[in-house]
Amino acid sequence: MSAASQARRLRDLSELEIVVLERGGFTSYSACGIPYWVGGDVRNRDALIARTPQEHRERDIDLRMRTEALEIDIAAGRVRALDRESGTESSLDYDKLVIATGARPTRPPLPGIDAPNVHGVQTLDDGQALIDTLETTSGTRAVVVGAGYIGVEMAEALLQRGYDVTVIDRGVEPMSTLDPDMGGIIREAMRGMGIQVESKTEVTEIRTAPDGRATAVITETAEYPADVVVLGIGVSPETGLARAAGLPLGEFGGLLTDAAMRVRGHENIWAGGDCVEVLDLVSGRQRHIPLGTHANKQGQVIGSGVGGGYATFPGVVGTAVSKVCDLEVARTGLREKDARAAGLQYVAVTIESTSRSGYYPGSAPMTVKMLAERYTGRLLGVQIVGREGAGKRVDIAAVALTARMTVEQVTQLDLGYAPPFSPVWDPIQVAARKAVTAVRTRH
Amino acid sequence: MSAASQARRLRDLSELEIVVLERGGFTSYSACGIPYWVGGDVRNRDALIARTPQEHRERDIDLRMRTEALEIDIAAGRVRALDRESGTESSLDYDKLVIATGARPTRPPLPGIDAPNVHGVQTLDDGQALIDTLETTSGTRAVVVGAGYIGVEMAEALLQRGYDVTVIDRGVEPMSTLDPDMGGIIREAMRGMGIQVESKTEVTEIRTAPDGRATAVITETAEYPADVVVLGIGVSPETGLARAAGLPLGEFGGLLTDAAMRVRGHENIWAGGDCVEVLDLVSGRQRHIPLGTHANKQGQVIGSGVGGGYATFPGVVGTAVSKVCDLEVARTGLREKDARAAGLQYVAVTIESTSRSGYYPGSAPMTVKMLAERYTGRLLGVQIVGREGAGKRVDIAAVALTARMTVEQVTQLDLGYAPPFSPVWDPIQVAARKAVTAVRTRH
Repeated sequence: MSAASQARRLRDLSELEIVVLERGGFTSYSACGIPYWVGGDVRNRDALIARTPQEHRERDIDLRMRTEALEIDIAAGRVRALDRESGTESSLDYDKLVIATGARPTRPPLPGIDAPNVHGVQTLDDGQALIDTLETTSGTRAVVVGAGYIGVEMAEALLQRGYDVTVIDRGVEPMSTLDPDMGGIIREAMRGMGIQVESKTEVTEIRTAPDGRATAVITETAEYPADVVVLGIGVSPETGLARAAGLPLGEFGGLLTDAAMRVRGHENIWAGGDCVEVLDLVSGRQRHIPLGTHANKQGQVIGSGVGGGYATFPGVVGTAVSKVCDLEVARTGLREKDARAAGLQYVAVTIESTSRSGYYPGSAPMTVKMLAERYTGRLLGVQIVGREGAGKRVDIAAVALTARMTVEQVTQLDLGYAPPFSPVWDPIQVAARKAVTAVRTRH
Repeated sequence: MSAASQARRLRDLSELEIVVLERGGFTSYSACGIPYWVGGDVRNRDALIARTPQEHRERDIDLRMRTEALEIDIAAGRVRALDRESGTESSLDYDKLVIATGARPTRPPLPGIDAPNVHGVQTLDDGQALIDTLETTSGTRAVVVGAGYIGVEMAEALLQRGYDVTVIDRGVEPMSTLDPDMGGIIREAMRGMGIQVESKTEVTEIRTAPDGRATAVITETAEYPADVVVLGIGVSPETGLARAAGLPLGEFGGLLTDAAMRVRGHENIWAGGDCVEVLDLVSGRQRHIPLGTHANKQGQVIGSGVGGGYATFPGVVGTAVSKVCDLEVARTGLREKDARAAGLQYVAVTIESTSRSGYYPGSAPMTVKMLAERYTGRLLGVQIVGREGAGKRVDIAAVALTARMTVEQVTQLDLGYAPPFSPVWDPIQVAARKAVTAVRTRH
C-alpha cells in the first residue's frame, strides 16, 4: 500500500490505474504493534490500522480485499487471481507489476502445532485469535517458542497480562541477533523479571488433550505445562508465486532487486518488503531482514518508480531495537560471527556506561559492545543492552556505519550533551575510545 | 585536567613532569550540572566533582590549587604564577604548555549588577553562593536575565524551588541558538509552565535597596520585582594571558589551533576548552562554542599530543541539547541566518511527528525543522522541540552532518524502529522526506 499510495501521489487516475490484490482482510497495519495490543498497551486493533481499505479506495486505488494472486504470467503480462469470498477467478493484465507478498511464519511440523490455543502473531487475525484465547481460557501458564524479537516482546505482553511465562529457544542465548555474551545479559534480566528462559532447547512436541487443545510443550529433556502457546520462530520470504514465475531468488529465498527495487532482469516488475533480500552495506552481502521500516521505505521507492519518478533504496546496516519490560536491546551492523563470515578481521570491546550523567536522576547503566575492523579501525557493529535511554542510541552507530566511519571518527562526533541526556562522553563514544585503543594495540 | 590525565596515561613521572595551575578551588567538575544542583535534582555539590585534587595528585599530577598564571613568556618558555593564598609569586619553566583558561561570564556594566543576590552560575562557587542566597532569602520572585541554555535551565531550577520566575532576554525569542520560529514554540511552552518570558527586552538597571540588595530588574519599559537575580548572558573566551603573550586569537577572541589543538604557529603550546575557537564543519568557519563535551574531547587530544601520541579534534557541527521541565530542545548545524552568513542557499522545512508510534503509550508530539542546501540537497541543520524522546534524536542529524549526507540519504538511513521507540519513519526522516521534495521543486 505504501507503493500504491506513493505512485498515486505522482500520477492521478487518468494517468495510472492502480489495482491492489490483498489476500487478507486488512491493509496498512502495524504488525510490529501486535505484541503491545496483546499486552494491553495499545487499546484496540483499530489503533494499529494506519489506513482502511475504504480510505485507500477514496484515493482512487482499486483495492480488492480477500483476493489472492494465484499465478503471474510474465510473458503475457497477466496475473490470475481468486476472489476468496465468491470463489471466482479472474485475470488482470498489467503494464507494471509490484510484488509485495511478505513473509510466511515458520511453523515446524510438530505434533500438536495446529491446536487452537497455539498461536502465531504475524497478522491482525493472529493477534485477535490469541486475544480471544487469552480471554476465554482459564489457567495462567504461557509458553513462548522462540526468543527473537517477537518471542521476547510476546513474553513481555503475556507477563503484563499476568501469565507465568516460559520462553523456550534453540539458541545459545536469547536474541541471537546479538552475540551470545550480550544475549546472556538479556537472559539474566528476563529471569529477573520472572520470565523462565530455556536456551539450547529444542521443542519436540506440543501435547494436546482429547479436546484437541494444547496442554504442554515437550522438549528433549522436559515438559512445560501450557494453557496457551505462542510461536515466535521467525519467518521466511513468501515467494512461491515469484518462484513459479521464474523470477530470481537469493540464498534466503527472497526476491533479488536492483537499487530502484526492480526485480533483477525485469524493467517493469518491482518487489519490496518481507519478500525481498536486501544489501547489507557493512558486509556487502545479501540478507533477509523482515522489518516494517524497510518495507515502508521500499514501498516509497517502488511507488516513485512506478509513478515515473526516481528513488533508490541503498541497503541496510542491520539496525533493530526492542524492549522487554524496561530492558532495552538494540543492535546494528555485524556480530562477531557475521564479521567472520564476511572475511573481516575485527576487535571487539565491551564497556559499561550510563544513559545520563551519573549524578542525574534516572541515570541507568547500559552495556555497549562494539566491533571494529582490524588495522583500518572501520566501525563494524554495535550492540546495546540497557534501560531507558539506551536503545535509540544505536542510531548514532547506524549512521556512522552507513558513512563507513572509523571508530576514531566516532570518538570525535559532536553528539548532544547535557546531564539529563547523556554523560559528557556518550556511551557509544566510550566504546569507540576503547575500540581505538584495541585497534592500535592488538596487532 | 583531561589533558593532564591523558598525558599521564601515556607517560609516567620518570618521562614527563606535569604541573597544573588552577586559580579556583575545584577541579574536574561538571559546570553543566549546576542548574540541576540548584534545582534539587542533584543532591549536593560533590556529586558534580568527577575527580578531586587529591585524586589527581595520587596520579602524579602536581596540581597547584588557588594558583593563578599571571604571564606567559614564550621566548623564555616560562610562566609566572601567583599563589593566591600566600600571595607569593613563582616562576615555572616549561617544555610544553597547555592553555585551558576557559571562559569569562558576560557581566554588563549595569548599575546594581554587583549586588549580593545577583548571581552568575559558571563555577561551583557561583552555584553555592546562589543556593546560599535562595536558602537565606525570603520572597519568591526570581528574575533570570538571558534565555540561552543556562537561562532556561536556571528558570526550570528556580521553578522547581517554588519561585515565580521571569526570564528577560534581548532576543526575538528564547533560545536564539534556534531559529525564531522554533524559539516561539519554546516561548509558548515556557509560558505554559508558568514562566513569564519577556523577549526583545533590554535590562537597563538592577535596582538595589539601601542595604545593597537587589530588589528589582528595570528594563526600558517595565520593572520586575526580584528577590534573587540570575545572570545567564553567555561567556567569552578568557584569553587575556594568551593575548598578552602574542598568541593568535580569532574573531570571537578565542585561541586559534591546528587539528591537534596546538596553538597555530607554536609547536609546543596547546590550547583547548572554552578559551579556543573551533572549526564548524558545516559552514567551514571558526566559531566559539563553550561546551564541556568539546572541552573533554580536546583535553583528550591535547593529552595525547603532550604525551607523544597522536590524535586530532576535527571540529564540530554545533550540536546542543537541553530541557526546560519536560520540554526538550535540540539543534545541530546551521540556522537560517548561519546559512545565509556562510553564503549557502537553502530550503527550510518544518514537520510535526511523534516520539513513538502514535498508538503507543507515551507517544509525544515533536517538531523538527530541517535545512538543506539548494540544488545539492546537502543536510545543513536540524532543530527539534518536543517532549520525552525528542532531544537525543538530534544525534542522527549530527552524524549525518559530519558525513556530509544529503537529505535524500537521510531518508534511507537504517534507524532503529519499534513502536515503543519511534514511528516507522523516524521524525528526522519525515523532515528529510519533506526536504527532499523542497530541494527538488523549489528551483
